[in-house]
This record gives sequence, structure tokens and C-alpha cells, in this order.
Amino acid sequence: MKLPETKWQIDTPALTVDLPTLKRNILKMADFFKDKTARVRPHFKTPKTVEIARMQLEAGAAGITCAKVSEAEVLVEAGIRDILIANEVVGGQKINRLVRLLKKGAEVKLAVDGAENIRELSALTARAKVRLGVLIDINVGLPRCGVAPEQAVELARLVMKSPGLELRGIMGYEGHIVLHEDAQFREQEAKKSMARLLSAKELIEQQGMKVEIVSGGGTGTYNITGVYPGVTEVQAGSYALMDTRYDKLNLGFEKAVTALATVISTACPGFIITDAGEKFMSIEFGMPRLIGVPDAQLAFLSEEHGHITYQGGQPPRKVGDKVEFYPSHICTTLNLNDWLWVVEGEKVVDCWKIAARGKSQ
Amino acid sequence: MKLPETKWQIDTPALTVDLPTLKRNILKMADFFKDKTARVRPHFKTPKTVEIARMQLEAGAAGITCAKVSEAEVLVEAGIRDILIANEVVGGQKINRLVRLLKKGAEVKLAVDGAENIRELSALTARAKVRLGVLIDINVGLPRCGVAPEQAVELARLVMKSPGLELRGIMGYEGHIVLHEDAQFREQEAKKSMARLLSAKELIEQQGMKVEIVSGGGTGTYNITGVYPGVTEVQAGSYALMDTRYDKLNLGFEKAVTALATVISTACPGFIITDAGEKFMSIEFGMPRLIGVPDAQLAFLSEEHGHITYQGGQPPRKVGDKVEFYPSHICTTLNLNDWLWVVEGEKVVDCWKIAARGKSQ
Repeated sequence: MKLPETKWQIDTPALTVDLPTLKRNILKMADFFKDKTARVRPHFKTPKTVEIARMQLEAGAAGITCAKVSEAEVLVEAGIRDILIANEVVGGQKINRLVRLLKKGAEVKLAVDGAENIRELSALTARAKVRLGVLIDINVGLPRCGVAPEQAVELARLVMKSPGLELRGIMGYEGHIVLHEDAQFREQEAKKSMARLLSAKELIEQQGMKVEIVSGGGTGTYNITGVYPGVTEVQAGSYALMDTRYDKLNLGFEKAVTALATVISTACPGFIITDAGEKFMSIEFGMPRLIGVPDAQLAFLSEEHGHITYQGGQPPRKVGDKVEFYPSHICTTLNLNDWLWVVEGEKVVDCWKIAARGKSQ
Repeated sequence: MKLPETKWQIDTPALTVDLPTLKRNILKMADFFKDKTARVRPHFKTPKTVEIARMQLEAGAAGITCAKVSEAEVLVEAGIRDILIANEVVGGQKINRLVRLLKKGAEVKLAVDGAENIRELSALTARAKVRLGVLIDINVGLPRCGVAPEQAVELARLVMKSPGLELRGIMGYEGHIVLHEDAQFREQEAKKSMARLLSAKELIEQQGMKVEIVSGGGTGTYNITGVYPGVTEVQAGSYALMDTRYDKLNLGFEKAVTALATVISTACPGFIITDAGEKFMSIEFGMPRLIGVPDAQLAFLSEEHGHITYQGGQPPRKVGDKVEFYPSHICTTLNLNDWLWVVEGEKVVDCWKIAARGKSQ
């Protein structure tokens, strides 16, 4: 593919990532963990792009985290071996896909929080003569997956006696806290969650079983969870690309991704209409932020259109002009798109496939 | 691909469409227009699936409507020739893609609402020696694209004298009304919008120019707009598949699509967690509706998980069980997915590619 020279020549709607900014974000996270006991295992659910996962591993990441088997398949296909699926994998079809990855030599670990699921995983991995690493998922406050610490011992024991499975550790995601804007509250609550997670480790180890991996955290708590005694891995995802929602937390990472759109109409007084709608960028965390157009803002998105409103009588941009936004939620925005244009400032240097887009299985 | 026998064997998350229901919806719309002057030109932005567009054409549709050039490319690739892009197409890159479709013999028409855009379209179509059909886009109340009726004459004149372009008619989409739940208000306001649209036809024809196509409408107003004197085409999209949002209008179409998920955890008291999150089904029109589980409902979605809450002490579904939802907004849900499993009741009969998924350019 012949690349356009500048980002303003990219046909729209389109996503760009600024390579120097991306590198600074990855380096900042790598630097933080350089002298720590814990390591970062970046979450692939955000970038879904193999080139970014490779950069994170080159910067010293422990491996890659993902949410779904189909994301792990993309990673293994790209030659990435050390993968944590930080989620429950249920049902024979998915477990057999997992078995195929293990047979290819991938070291895949995953979360469990139920006895039935452990028995199902054991039956299929034992039959296939593969060994699957297992982390007991602990509920640390987010009402989603995971058991209470006091229930973890029983599941750990079941894993220990299950052929095909290997008890590797525990995980607990404080997802109810990572986006809290009050830094003091965030720290206090994240520590409570980690105390709860580590209490599970203590209970399991009291019974003579070894808990090697203790995994938790996200971008909003990496510097709290990442230094909590006993935590060995942090599953941060958004830090590499960032968005306006995470930006409110002032974590020191920079927004690397912008969304490009073209003005297609100014016929309706008070509105500038672009070609970038909610099928291209997500809005569940609020409107993407219009960049560099004073007294104007993105007011709402319809399916295929963006509606910019402005103060003053004359629209500040004309039909054919390109405009740029910072996405409000980078994870779901990347999941809408197939391509990520790589820029250095205004210059286009590459185009990466968002290879795990839509991999929800 | 070997198909599973029943829909409960499809790996999740997955979308299904019930073929008999889909056929009934398409037939109901076709029947409505059988004795009318106007015809339906189904909007492709909803199903984004070639097999469905073909069924709509076989049932007598005038042609297909779409929103983007990249959707038109999918249709032309599938051998569908008569296409209305009900949107402005701005910029040389997209117009040249349009020119390529015209050179392949497709009869593509599109909306315009500005003089600059008309000049740009004319320059590129004339140079390529193709003829592009043009509809003047009229703002009928939705603050988006389109000019006021009194401005339409000037644009029509400009089109008339622009080489490469052919004035075919006008369009106006009453998108601010189509989802209004009060049927009487909907009728009254849709008629106002159509009166405004037809006033543009009158003004243009008073100047001796011919307005052959008058296009408007959506699923929520098809039976109002479709019988309004002078309207020739209706751009309804959702009627074929439907969703819970449109269902509130009691239009007589049936919900044909369901979303399948697997329960992956019941460890957290009060919650049943599924593997279907907002990267798989959209929520901007509210939560998808859980089917057939009394006293339980989908409370919220995170990126990869669905959180079902229930009344009573014991979860009504267990880990590994499949559950089913009606999507709240079918257009954006299909746009998240690559495949649509075709079922007849519980039996799986086919799997269609959602070929225009992500085609936002």
C-alpha cells in the first residue's frame, strides 16, 4: 500500500496513532516497572494491534494480557507466546481452541472462578495431553467474575488435583476503581482491593499451595497496584494509547490516538456535519473532543454523522476541511475499526491492521 | 464451513437472524408498497449484508439505499446496480471511488447540499466521462445535512449546468421523527416534513426543472411518508431485522435478530455474567432485552461482559448455559460483528457475512 504523505491526505473517517507519543507512553510504563518487583503485562483488549503488543514486549513487558480466546489466537499467530486470558473460558468449543494454542507451544494462562469450569477445562486439557496454567479469579470489589478470598482455597485445591491444569496464582481486577477521578480515594480503594487479593494468596499458601502470580490493576491504578507488596503483574491496557476519559486522571500518559473526519455539510445553520459517526467512534464515555477549533464542540453523533456546534454566526470550518478528535473511550473505538494509521506529527509512516478488532469470542 | 445443527451449538457471542421472520418482514413491507405510487428502497446501513439486500430486491424494492461509498462498493461487488447514497460525498478520494463504481456500470445516485461539493463532483465525473445522478438534500427538520427548500432551486440550477451530473430529484430524511413513540404526533410531524420536502419540488419545477425522485422516510414513518402525495421512494432500513427500540412503535414488524451469549460466571452473588459485552452489542438505545428468563434482566454491559441481575436467592441460569437477547439498536449491533447466523427456529441453516461491517468511509 502506498502511504499518503501527511495525515491530512488520509481518507476519512480514520484513526491515527502518533508513533513518538506511543513510544513515550510505553517507555514511561516500562521505566516505572524497571526497579519494581512487579511487572506490567499489557492488556491487548485496548490496542488489539500486534505491532503495539510487540513494542510493549520489547520494552520489557512480562507477556500480554487479553480477554478472549480469539484475541489470544491473534497473538499466537503473530508469534507471541506468553499470554494471560484474564477471563473465564467456558464451553467445549472455546476450550478446544485454547488447547490448539497450547499445542502450538503457546504458554496460555487463564482465570477460573467455578468448580464446574475447572472440571471442564481439566477434562479437555488432560485428554489433549497439554498443561494449562490457571489463576483463581478473586472478586476484589467489582461485581463481575471472581470468588471471595475464602472460597479461593477450595478452587485452588480442585485445580491442584485436576489433570491438565497447573495452579499458577490468583488475579483480581479493581475495575470499579480504576477510573475514579479522586486520586486519594482511588489509592485508598485500590489498596483495599489488593489487600483482599493478597488475603486470598495467604489463605491458599497456608494450605501448602504455591501462588506464584498475583495479577491485578489497570491504567488508573498501575502505580498503586504495581507497588503493592505481593502483586507480581499489572494488566494495564489504555496507557499506551489513552483517551479523554483516562486523561482526566492526570496519570502522565499522553493521548496518542486521534480520529480524523471530513466536514460534509454546513448547510444547517449552527451545525458543522462530519462523516464520522458512532459506527466509527464510541460515545459511552461521552463525546470525543474536537481539537483546535475554538468555540466549537462535538455535540452529538448519529450513526454516520458527527454534529459540531459553534458559537458565532459563521461556521469555523468549511465543507471538505478535515477535523480531528480525541476519542473518549479508546478500547471500544479501536474495536470499531480495521486500520490504525501511524503518524509522526503530520507525516504518515505506516498503517497497522487492528487485527483483533471484533474478536469477542 | 460445517454448520452447527441448532443455534444453541453456535459459539458465543453470536448474532442469529430467523429466516422466516426476516422473510415475513420483507414481505410485509413489499405488500404495503404493492398498490402504492411510491416504492421502498431499503437502507443497507442496517443489515449491511448482501443476502438481505438481494431478498429485498427480489421482493420488489426499487433499489438499495446506503450511507457511504464503501457500502456502495460492497453492493456493486455483489452485482447490485441501482444504488442511492443518501448522503453527501466530499473529497477527491471518495469521488474517484464513486467514479470507479459508475465506470463498472452501477447506477449510483447521491445527495448534495452545497455548491462547492457540486462543482467538485462535476469536475471529477466530467473528466472521467461518467454521469452521476444527483438529489438535492432538503432539511426537513433534522438538524444535519440538507438545505432549506428555498435554497434548493439555486443548487438544482447549478446541477443542471454541471457536466457529469444529472438532476434526478430531491430527498429529505425526517430522522428527528421516525423514532417518536406517539403515533399521532409522528404522523403529524412526518407530514409536516414531507410538506416541506414537496415544497422544494414545487419550487424547482416552477423553474422548469424536472424532479423525478422524491425520497424520504424510515421504518417509523414508512406508512406515512410512503403514502404522502409526491413521495416516490422510502429509505426504510430497520424493518427487516427490527430491535427493541423500534419495537416500541408497534409497527407490526417482528424482531428477527437475537444475540447469543454464554454464562461464564455466577460467582458474584446477585449477578449472572455472560461473555457478551458492549464490543459485541450496542447500548446507546438502552440495554438489550434478556429473553425467557423470568425475574432477571441485563443490568449493564462492560466491554466484554454482560451483567444480568435477578430476583431471588439462586441464579436462574448456571455457568455454561446459553442465554439470548433482543438487541436494542440493530444498526450499530450489526456493525460490531462479522457474521450473522441464519436460523429457522432453533435450526441453523446458513451463516452470512456482514460484508459492509465497519464500512464507514
